[in-house]
Amino acid sequence: MRIKLINPNTTGSMTDLIAAAARSVAAPGTEIIAATSRSGPASIECHFDEAMSVVGLIDEIIDAPAADAYVIACFGDPGLLAAREITDAPVFGIAEAAMHAATFVSTGFSVVTTLERTRIITEHLVRNYGMEHQCRRVRATDVPVLELERPESNARATILAECERALVEDQSSAIVLGCAGMADLAAYLEDRLQIPVIDGVAAAVKFAEAIVGMGLKTSKRGDLAPPLPKIYRGKLASYAPGNGLVGSTTSLKAG
Amino acid sequence: MRIKLINPNTTGSMTDLIAAAARSVAAPGTEIIAATSRSGPASIECHFDEAMSVVGLIDEIIDAPAADAYVIACFGDPGLLAAREITDAPVFGIAEAAMHAATFVSTGFSVVTTLERTRIITEHLVRNYGMEHQCRRVRATDVPVLELERPESNARATILAECERALVEDQSSAIVLGCAGMADLAAYLEDRLQIPVIDGVAAAVKFAEAIVGMGLKTSKRGDLAPPLPKIYRGKLASYAPGNGLVGSTTSLKAG
Amino acid sequence: MRIKLINPNTTGSMTDLIAAAARSVAAPGTEIIAATSRSGPASIECHFDEAMSVVGLIDEIIDAPAADAYVIACFGDPGLLAAREITDAPVFGIAEAAMHAATFVSTGFSVVTTLERTRIITEHLVRNYGMEHQCRRVRATDVPVLELERPESNARATILAECERALVEDQSSAIVLGCAGMADLAAYLEDRLQIPVIDGVAAAVKFAEAIVGMGLKTSKRGDLAPPLPKIYRGKLASYAPGNGLVGSTTSLKAG
Amino acid sequence: MRIKLINPNTTGSMTDLIAAAARSVAAPGTEIIAATSRSGPASIECHFDEAMSVVGLIDEIIDAPAADAYVIACFGDPGLLAAREITDAPVFGIAEAAMHAATFVSTGFSVVTTLERTRIITEHLVRNYGMEHQCRRVRATDVPVLELERPESNARATILAECERALVEDQSSAIVLGCAGMADLAAYLEDRLQIPVIDGVAAAVKFAEAIVGMGLKTSKRGDLAPPLPKIYRGKLASYAPGNGLVGSTTSLKAG
Amino acid sequence: MRIKLINPNTTGSMTDLIAAAARSVAAPGTEIIAATSRSGPASIECHFDEAMSVVGLIDEIIDAPAADAYVIACFGDPGLLAAREITDAPVFGIAEAAMHAATFVSTGFSVVTTLERTRIITEHLVRNYGMEHQCRRVRATDVPVLELERPESNARATILAECERALVEDQSSAIVLGCAGMADLAAYLEDRLQIPVIDGVAAAVKFAEAIVGMGLKTSKRGDLAPPLPKIYRGKLASYAPGNGLVGSTTSLKAG
Amino acid sequence: MRIKLINPNTTGSMTDLIAAAARSVAAPGTEIIAATSRSGPASIECHFDEAMSVVGLIDEIIDAPAADAYVIACFGDPGLLAAREITDAPVFGIAEAAMHAATFVSTGFSVVTTLERTRIITEHLVRNYGMEHQCRRVRATDVPVLELERPESNARATILAECERALVEDQSSAIVLGCAGMADLAAYLEDRLQIPVIDGVAAAVKFAEAIVGMGLKTSKRGDLAPPLPKIYRGKLASYAPGNGLVGSTTSLKAG
Repeated sequence: MRIKLINPNTTGSMTDLIAAAARSVAAPGTEIIAATSRSGPASIECHFDEAMSVVGLIDEIIDAPAADAYVIACFGDPGLLAAREITDAPVFGIAEAAMHAATFVSTGFSVVTTLERTRIITEHLVRNYGMEHQCRRVRATDVPVLELERPESNARATILAECERALVEDQSSAIVLGCAGMADLAAYLEDRLQIPVIDGVAAAVKFAEAIVGMGLKTSKRGDLAPPLPKIYRGKLASYAPGNGLVGSTTSLKAG
Repeated sequence: MRIKLINPNTTGSMTDLIAAAARSVAAPGTEIIAATSRSGPASIECHFDEAMSVVGLIDEIIDAPAADAYVIACFGDPGLLAAREITDAPVFGIAEAAMHAATFVSTGFSVVTTLERTRIITEHLVRNYGMEHQCRRVRATDVPVLELERPESNARATILAECERALVEDQSSAIVLGCAGMADLAAYLEDRLQIPVIDGVAAAVKFAEAIVGMGLKTSKRGDLAPPLPKIYRGKLASYAPGNGLVGSTTSLKAG
Repeated sequence: MRIKLINPNTTGSMTDLIAAAARSVAAPGTEIIAATSRSGPASIECHFDEAMSVVGLIDEIIDAPAADAYVIACFGDPGLLAAREITDAPVFGIAEAAMHAATFVSTGFSVVTTLERTRIITEHLVRNYGMEHQCRRVRATDVPVLELERPESNARATILAECERALVEDQSSAIVLGCAGMADLAAYLEDRLQIPVIDGVAAAVKFAEAIVGMGLKTSKRGDLAPPLPKIYRGKLASYAPGNGLVGSTTSLKAG
Repeated sequence: MRIKLINPNTTGSMTDLIAAAARSVAAPGTEIIAATSRSGPASIECHFDEAMSVVGLIDEIIDAPAADAYVIACFGDPGLLAAREITDAPVFGIAEAAMHAATFVSTGFSVVTTLERTRIITEHLVRNYGMEHQCRRVRATDVPVLELERPESNARATILAECERALVEDQSSAIVLGCAGMADLAAYLEDRLQIPVIDGVAAAVKFAEAIVGMGLKTSKRGDLAPPLPKIYRGKLASYAPGNGLVGSTTSLKAG
Repeated sequence: MRIKLINPNTTGSMTDLIAAAARSVAAPGTEIIAATSRSGPASIECHFDEAMSVVGLIDEIIDAPAADAYVIACFGDPGLLAAREITDAPVFGIAEAAMHAATFVSTGFSVVTTLERTRIITEHLVRNYGMEHQCRRVRATDVPVLELERPESNARATILAECERALVEDQSSAIVLGCAGMADLAAYLEDRLQIPVIDGVAAAVKFAEAIVGMGLKTSKRGDLAPPLPKIYRGKLASYAPGNGLVGSTTSLKAG
Repeated sequence: MRIKLINPNTTGSMTDLIAAAARSVAAPGTEIIAATSRSGPASIECHFDEAMSVVGLIDEIIDAPAADAYVIACFGDPGLLAAREITDAPVFGIAEAAMHAATFVSTGFSVVTTLERTRIITEHLVRNYGMEHQCRRVRATDVPVLELERPESNARATILAECERALVEDQSSAIVLGCAGMADLAAYLEDRLQIPVIDGVAAAVKFAEAIVGMGLKTSKRGDLAPPLPKIYRGKLASYAPGNGLVGSTTSLKAG
């Protein structure tokens, strides 16, 4: 099984970190193809970054060769429903995967994320995924995404301290890590906190294996059907559904 | 006051229709600048179209001259929060505006929209805008967006029939038109249905005048602050916040 | 356009303050008629005050001359749906207007109000208006309503301090002022807090202009139709719908 | 124990019917004092009627002699929170009581009420009382309130037919009667439907006995504390809290 | 009227305490039969204890003689819906009864319970009973259930202190006691706090009298109908519906 | 990896069917141990059956040898939280697993289940799992559980017809099968409906592999910690936590 793991920001070193996390949990027969977006923000930390990351993400999904499943490795799950329309291979967001995983091993979790200003993005996801009762709080640490990569930064200690506050103040019994760039922190934190600490990259890879293993594909009835063929203009003309790059309802069979 | 009305699809004839609707309600001192997106889908009818319309929308917002307020004239309100980050002028989505207007003149409304597959997009907006109690139902007519422009089509009759069903089956007392391309139908339908029929383009223009008239600007504290300056790569490199085109937290003063 | 601004408490000096706030934002062609209730409580600070303010409010609505829109200038929005039944001119509550305005310029707001005991009234409105996600908290200052008028009181400083706490503790990015008597504080607070501070009186006046400008009237289908004609007895006999003072379904045409 | 049963409409024959229903379930030691409002609408069928019924209701509550509990015998529960402020004896609305009773004997109920236009009033109560999951639907029959009293009318058969539809279409396992004027129908309907049919008058009387029997009084901490003393003007001047008729925080001890 | 009060834990001294609370509020004609479960946990403090208490609870319900109503005297309301299926006499949980009672005398209450780990059980009940708006917070004291019985323990002072925090921090105006073993604390706490303090045992007994007094029985239409007759195997074989001990749809008449 | 699949009803032939479904999707290294409850109902079709199935379920969980994960193969997810307390191996309910799986491949699903009376059980799960927006409707077919096994029955056709109605009436784009006994129908239905049809047994097995593969165990902090040691009496005495059969907080280390 081939799972394509897409880092929708354009920082290759973060892709390496994410890919390592994915490979460390992948089943024997699973091939992880890690891709870095070629267009857009170096990190995704606001609504604008997120919106501008979608074109680069789509590029990776329509690029050959096709995969059996796709993982969008950014905690805002940018472009998730758009991606699900243009392929019948299952697509997973890491926020979605991490929150679902948390509900299997706890009755209440906290999300610990990076910048305060991204908290609202996560809160919207919590609501759209039906996690309002199970997610007890979203906590920001104000650690910038790319700071997570610098070993000399204080990021690790800051995040641990926020997790500890979550246990006491939110009565949470699990932690969801709110950034793909935290993928390598799960073991470190779990060891210290003695509760499940969930990295969405690992969760998405394993759920991708699970869903593909059940033989399920994205439903092509209703709103996730391939886009209707139509004209696209200007610098995005090549993305027109039905033109060969992007499938459309007349060129792609329902799953 | 200058309000820039952006059609985020690339069909200029639809922009003309929308601009006429806007001008018919604008106050004496209001100048309507109507713009058609130069990049992206000819119509917006699915998650993919919507995601791919955001770049073209952003182009219109960052283009000089600046306006006092912006209206995004597509009922999916694409890119609304991203747009709010990169300007402190208020930005309005027409779905948001129409639903708010409906709550001022009725206790329950139905949305009548185009394709069945766009219904889920509206349902997500209903939930995010807190309209679950007031929006009694979202109804699709399966009239394609561009069909609305063809006088010989049956679109008008189909939509009237769906509105009539809404009155009886949903016990709604107002109708929200679920597509910018229906902007010219409001008077026709209101005349026949004898209840408020709300076009989001008109609503957004009037609310823009209202909010600007109160002296309010988009809050620049928290998640709608200007994006952080950072590197953008590839074909979107020019959109990097702080590079001159797009403001950033260090170059734009808070409102 | 004539907008009648009704202060449902019987303190005329507060009406003057409210009227000034309304006039400071009104469009050139808008005439503001400010009226003080002639019957009922000097200030509205509990469920009982609110219930007993409705008769005086209704008196102002049925009094000639008719207006194009009505604003109920008390943050509890007393009698709002009753008022909407007896006229087809749009009627606005200032709590409703302020909260809607806040959602256009922020993703989360706090309400800062007067007495602790009125907090529950606001919380009920928050829920009925679908603002549960956007209103992050209702905060009481325990400043009595009429204290707001006394320049020597500490009210201004107390309210500023509570707003500052809202920014830090609630992560709000806008403030809604929870009392008509605070209408003159918006500019003062906005200047110090550097975020949108919304006075419901201004918001209601501007939204009234907007809704009237769109040609919308209150829906007369369903529960906001004029009351059925019937006998009223005792000291309220003159309010019987259909008796000449109050319109009824047989005497008022639908909008 | 003395329970004062207040019909907030001014139709005495309906009071007789309600009083009979109350007495048929009252415990041996319970005295039912039935009162008809002396001011206001002959029947309560819209927001305006409801708002205008509150003064007459308050008159009955402040009238000597005091009771151990009060029941407001109109399904819209008009003035419930206002009434709870001005006495420490428990006050019950019949809609509230009926819905609570239904949750003890079924997992889902339907409300069958009178006019279509009152449905929205009940739906607001359902939401405020937290009954959204348990109340499966509010059904209107378009039988006017006073028609219920005319034996030659078709009201009884119409209501039975609507209840039968509720069982099949809503999968409800209990019926709540949505009007005080239906109090004498419960036995008739229960006999034919073979499920619990709940009259709010009976439910409120029995819950009043229960709450008084537990020694509970309305909490006087917070928003149900007696109103603050203040000036009331005009035709409502005599209702000023603290003036002798209506208790206030300085004249009434907390419960 | 005979009310059977079942302590689903196997500690007889707690049954005595509960029975005294029940008898102290019972009406003259009410006979309280107090029973202690003969099988299962000595106290119920987690999901496992709760699940394992149901067999002993069912034993008490199917034991002759039949009662007119049953009360399950554990704040987790274990086995409530199962019990309602096997008898048409009304069955009451004390958590359910206490929360409903609190809504009649306050606009917001806090639950004060025993162990932190039982808090989630109460939170689930709050949600299922529709009390999310009215229950402002569930507070644990970490007092073990059986500690409540030891006069030399500090339980009483600990619980009083937690109630005082609830008044200040939650703005609650009533307290619900979150354990049957606290039944004798209500008067003590009410005296000190001067707000309603509600013991679920008393509330359930009074509501049982009320519902029986209205002539209501559990609906036997739909999901609370008697179980279908079928084979049960192993150590639970004797519980097979239809075998004589447990009624089934063919042996028990609908209510 | 060893996954223990527990059929909590006592019908061995259904276990065989379930085990086959589990084995057909299990990964190469996964061993499926299928167990049939030895105590309790032959099928689980009501609250009572469900409550009485928990003892037999617990027996299978505490029986040696221990597994790496447990699956409870009944769509009501009986005893799920109790089971999670007494082991640190992850435990999965098939309703929970199926609904989570459906959200990965569709934006809205319908549950098609057996008896009408079990619908309420599923609706409670939908709410507790946060699936209210994604689960568009729970549909009963009134096919008894054990009828599913009889090839000559009409069960298959009845279920297909109900699924077809779900597509049209609910606008669902995936089907969740609402009974473990339907595990062998997924392929048949998927072939005819051309949308994802999800069997909870397969989903639970794959999610068990995923969660175990991530190294996650049930959180032992908070309400899922092992039960406190205490006395159990009567026929359930042997289940006392800490007695050797059931772990307790003092004998089991946190995960």
